[in-house]
Amino acid sequence: MGRLVDLFDPETVAVVGATDREGAVGRAILENLRDTFGGDVVPINPSRDEVLGLECYEDVSSAPPIELAVVVVPPDAVAGTLREIGETGTRNVVVITAGFSETGGEGAERERRLREVAADYDLNVVGPNSLGIMSTRNDMNASFGPEDAIEGSISFMSQSGAFITAVLDWANEQGIGFRDVVSLGNKAVLDETDFVREWGDDPDTDVIIGYLEGIDDGDEFVETARAVTDETPIVLVKSGRTDAGAQAASSHTGAIAGSERAYEAGLEQAGVIRADSVQELFDYSRALSGLPEPDSDGVAVVTNAGGPGVLTTDAVGDSTLEIADFEDETIDELAAAMPDEASVYNPIDIIGDADAERFGEALSIVLEDSNVGSAVVVSSPTAVLEYDNLAETIIEKRQAHETPVVACLMGGQRARAAEEVLRDFGIPNYFDPSRAVSGLDALATYRDVRERTIDEPERFDVDRERAREILTRATDRDDNRLGVESMDLFDAYGIPTPDGEIVDDPNRAREVATSIEGDVVMKIVSPDISHKSDIGGVKIGVADEDVYDAYEDLVARARNYQPDATVLGVQVQEQVDLDDATETIVGMNRDPQFGPLLLFGLGGIFVEILEDTSVRVAPIGEDEARAMVDEIQATPLLRGARGREPADVDGVVETIQRLSQLVTDFPSVLELDINPLVAGPDGVQAIDLRLTVDTDELETDPDQ
Amino acid sequence: MGRLVDLFDPETVAVVGATDREGAVGRAILENLRDTFGGDVVPINPSRDEVLGLECYEDVSSAPPIELAVVVVPPDAVAGTLREIGETGTRNVVVITAGFSETGGEGAERERRLREVAADYDLNVVGPNSLGIMSTRNDMNASFGPEDAIEGSISFMSQSGAFITAVLDWANEQGIGFRDVVSLGNKAVLDETDFVREWGDDPDTDVIIGYLEGIDDGDEFVETARAVTDETPIVLVKSGRTDAGAQAASSHTGAIAGSERAYEAGLEQAGVIRADSVQELFDYSRALSGLPEPDSDGVAVVTNAGGPGVLTTDAVGDSTLEIADFEDETIDELAAAMPDEASVYNPIDIIGDADAERFGEALSIVLEDSNVGSAVVVSSPTAVLEYDNLAETIIEKRQAHETPVVACLMGGQRARAAEEVLRDFGIPNYFDPSRAVSGLDALATYRDVRERTIDEPERFDVDRERAREILTRATDRDDNRLGVESMDLFDAYGIPTPDGEIVDDPNRAREVATSIEGDVVMKIVSPDISHKSDIGGVKIGVADEDVYDAYEDLVARARNYQPDATVLGVQVQEQVDLDDATETIVGMNRDPQFGPLLLFGLGGIFVEILEDTSVRVAPIGEDEARAMVDEIQATPLLRGARGREPADVDGVVETIQRLSQLVTDFPSVLELDINPLVAGPDGVQAIDLRLTVDTDELETDPDQ
Repeated sequence: MGRLVDLFDPETVAVVGATDREGAVGRAILENLRDTFGGDVVPINPSRDEVLGLECYEDVSSAPPIELAVVVVPPDAVAGTLREIGETGTRNVVVITAGFSETGGEGAERERRLREVAADYDLNVVGPNSLGIMSTRNDMNASFGPEDAIEGSISFMSQSGAFITAVLDWANEQGIGFRDVVSLGNKAVLDETDFVREWGDDPDTDVIIGYLEGIDDGDEFVETARAVTDETPIVLVKSGRTDAGAQAASSHTGAIAGSERAYEAGLEQAGVIRADSVQELFDYSRALSGLPEPDSDGVAVVTNAGGPGVLTTDAVGDSTLEIADFEDETIDELAAAMPDEASVYNPIDIIGDADAERFGEALSIVLEDSNVGSAVVVSSPTAVLEYDNLAETIIEKRQAHETPVVACLMGGQRARAAEEVLRDFGIPNYFDPSRAVSGLDALATYRDVRERTIDEPERFDVDRERAREILTRATDRDDNRLGVESMDLFDAYGIPTPDGEIVDDPNRAREVATSIEGDVVMKIVSPDISHKSDIGGVKIGVADEDVYDAYEDLVARARNYQPDATVLGVQVQEQVDLDDATETIVGMNRDPQFGPLLLFGLGGIFVEILEDTSVRVAPIGEDEARAMVDEIQATPLLRGARGREPADVDGVVETIQRLSQLVTDFPSVLELDINPLVAGPDGVQAIDLRLTVDTDELETDPDQ
Repeated sequence: MGRLVDLFDPETVAVVGATDREGAVGRAILENLRDTFGGDVVPINPSRDEVLGLECYEDVSSAPPIELAVVVVPPDAVAGTLREIGETGTRNVVVITAGFSETGGEGAERERRLREVAADYDLNVVGPNSLGIMSTRNDMNASFGPEDAIEGSISFMSQSGAFITAVLDWANEQGIGFRDVVSLGNKAVLDETDFVREWGDDPDTDVIIGYLEGIDDGDEFVETARAVTDETPIVLVKSGRTDAGAQAASSHTGAIAGSERAYEAGLEQAGVIRADSVQELFDYSRALSGLPEPDSDGVAVVTNAGGPGVLTTDAVGDSTLEIADFEDETIDELAAAMPDEASVYNPIDIIGDADAERFGEALSIVLEDSNVGSAVVVSSPTAVLEYDNLAETIIEKRQAHETPVVACLMGGQRARAAEEVLRDFGIPNYFDPSRAVSGLDALATYRDVRERTIDEPERFDVDRERAREILTRATDRDDNRLGVESMDLFDAYGIPTPDGEIVDDPNRAREVATSIEGDVVMKIVSPDISHKSDIGGVKIGVADEDVYDAYEDLVARARNYQPDATVLGVQVQEQVDLDDATETIVGMNRDPQFGPLLLFGLGGIFVEILEDTSVRVAPIGEDEARAMVDEIQATPLLRGARGREPADVDGVVETIQRLSQLVTDFPSVLELDINPLVAGPDGVQAIDLRLTVDTDELETDPDQ
């Protein structure tokens, strides 16, 4: 068990700032604890002897030993209170008090002091600006929220306290239970990663769910969540997905918005299942908290109603699942057991006069089929069907097989009692067939998360020292961008480039051109000229005899364009045959939360107009690099669509991995684009380079 | 009012086949009518004098005059019963009896006879194989379903009776009311179009909703729905959207599956709002049945909770709406009226201690802002907020402005009473912010439907007789496909083609080539060789002096490939400059339900790999043709992306319209592809043609 057990399961809880003043937060918390908690509750307030019938202490040091302190003192007193708490040896603190970083300057300074004290005493601090925490381990409601949680196996964290209040009220009506609930507040000390780690170690947490507006340390979160999701599914609503939402989230929590693409990639790599709404959050977690894993994607649909059966089938079509293709034996058995009018092909329509027993027979038969990974029972209310009996039948069949079954007993009031019975046995009931299927879909997604193996990033043999020297060139410049003159960076990291050289006199240009077979491409090399083509700074198909004049012309154009431009020379490069090749782009930029974000796409319109790209947080291994290539829409173009010879996809995949290694080795590289990386049948070649270096960071790049 | 008023609002209803036998459908219907209906109920059964205390008649002719007959006699007796009913002058019949086309051969024959009798007596027949109908106009439940509907303004049709049962049970729990409800059954006589027309004429139907698995006559439906949606929104779940679902729907109803693309286009052109699930159906219709239209897309979000506010903002980002940009005055007023800690920028966070009054103040201010087209109130339960008061405040502010407001009072039990109050005033409450926004989104979509003007298809001056002659060529062939030899079809319909001719001797080929400026393209012309390029049957860049030999070579290749191939000659065509042009595809195929389905896309990978196409049901006018060009993802390529000269988009739009006219004029054209239609800066040219003609249909093509 992790280090936060005492936070959720203390024997003694103190409320520092407890009061009996009506409407005060310090009273609400004390009331909640008094009314629910199994352990001792200790009010602390220097101006009271007794609060709500409990003996009150002047300060923490005079109180009996406490394991959890809930702090509701004024903002300026919080740091001092934490110090006192730390002195007594108590390590777990929930700071309810608001008025910290969420309020700007002065508050941010208060929060900095709070963090310092926490570090001095190694305190586990939730908050500040938290609604509090709850745990059904010991019936503890250490929050000022009006609702207690029902016992269950879902642990829930939220960056919004109001979200917790709203969800608990609704969950209580729905009979959905929780293990631990945490209002994260400003996350000054403990953040989402800490709770993911804690609940990953908690055998009684079946599902971790959360509402987050930002993730503080994306890297660490990904690493932690990856390990946890081997055992425990994580379902998150990460809000601020849209531009408008991101702006609202940033003004709500003051978080620097990372890019949605980075969150999308990072959370996916972490194995997190993402929900877009409250409803999805619970539709997924209800299925994940009580059902076994589906061992295949085939879904059996058993229904007494044709129309809802078709709707369910559409929902399966929309999902990652598929309608199971029954074995012949299954169809024979169904045909023997069901009435003639029934449809024994999936979706199975056992028709309107079906009772619970007929549902049971059909369900038994399909759950034996090895092509059936999961099943959904969809029913419309009829005169001959008792929903309570149907619920019991479903439970019985579900328990007899290691196959997940969800229910969609349609209807209103008449479905409620059955729904409750199903819930007690871990079977979610959904009103809408599409939601029932999305529950099954979440199970299959989680199975895939568990089954995937994430290969270790390969460590290619590279010349790191040479790369460092090349990057250091940027320190001598006025600006921190490097271009084609630094193509030797690719050589250092084993990324193929065309033959060529940067030269600074026309005779040398001719020599280089002569050493290269065929015509050459010549480009002006100047950090001051970024759009070379626009000023005629690129010449293609230059024959050896024209190289001298071309050199002179390029330099003249550059001077003409900008008399004081730094001209580093002219690049003379082998002309790559583009007829049978495809231009791709491999790039990287750094996200404030997740770090290096790799991007892949096809060149030109594919990236610029169709926005057909894939992204991953680096470092990545071969499988993930290959997935980047496979998941763009235009990938068939690389694989030999329309009669073309397939490009060297392995070369592209390796280049992505080598770039991943480069940007991981050098945190000083802020942005880097290989554009284009030309992929032909015989290999790949990086043709052009743009990168930005953080010259301050250069010195701190790790050595190895 | 339409012709179906008596169906829904009769004074006397007969149940033909009424019985008091326990469990019989004929009893269930009679009971429902007896218990609910305001008019007279007449049981008819030759072997009873009295049924359930009502005087029973031997047959229809001996009964008092009736306005609606509900028929539950055995399948073979239905046609005869309908004839008797027709003889008495009764025109409205609901056939409950099953065992018709849904059961195959014999049943289909029964249904044919039923249809004949209905035609003879001009009967309005619902069904057969129907659950029945209901109407709250007169508390009539003429069905064997267990639930009565609550009174309301939603009229509801369903191709699945079970769907009605399930939905009514749920709707009763939710307090959602209906006007008329129809179980369509097999739609032998009355179908979805009839009810759309009827309800469009009914001033008390605010929204028409439906569950359909197929639309029988797409054309007529589109025309009818287009007119109706000027006044009354239509929201449909059309199931069978996915391949699996379409297969299931086809086995459920025996309907020939039309293509999902055709439904998508047809329903959109009809102005129908499409829902994918039961939940969406009601989320949309609840908003559409009680709220005014938003006059702009700006949404104001008023909340006491930051997190749910961000979620709402994300939902707006996902929708067609946008977060309203407040006028300065609004921000000033909010700043003055709200506490300092409030965020007065949209989403407005009036913070956790807000009471109903503060919500009301904020709502009043934003509803005055001319950039606000709609508003959503999102609240989390707190100690200081009474939901009942909040509901009253929302109703009051909503009524004081012509702006739609929806509510998202989050929570469970504590929101129920407020929800009911809101509902009584036409304001839907949703638990999930994303659903609240989707309700507003449906309102905006419907406003757009109402506001759009659908331009009449232009009638270009074409040579229809010549086109008919060209199409008739297919009758002389072994197969019914025409190709490049029929390019003069384009000339007849004013679609530009390159200069050229089909010739059948090499000397003539040279003459034609000489008359054309520059090199030419030569293609073998044979109905037996569809993939000309694959056998070397196309030569490009042929100089005049090489034309003779090229001709001989092409013919030799064709003979070599297939000795008995019919060779019509060789096409000698102006070589179109493709450097500055874009290849597009304009095509048509016929859908069994909707008729001619036009398709537009860019050539090559864009259609084949990226599936980036737009479709419309013909005939269409200029606006819709232009929308087809605009809505493909790659459209910037035509408009001059990446420094290219823009293509002649007007020419493309006109070509689509001319093709629309051609395929509307000639129903015998089953499929037609202009591939490619080359679009350059100076115009468009149709380069190649493939079409399939229904030679039997040719004779019945209309003359004008």
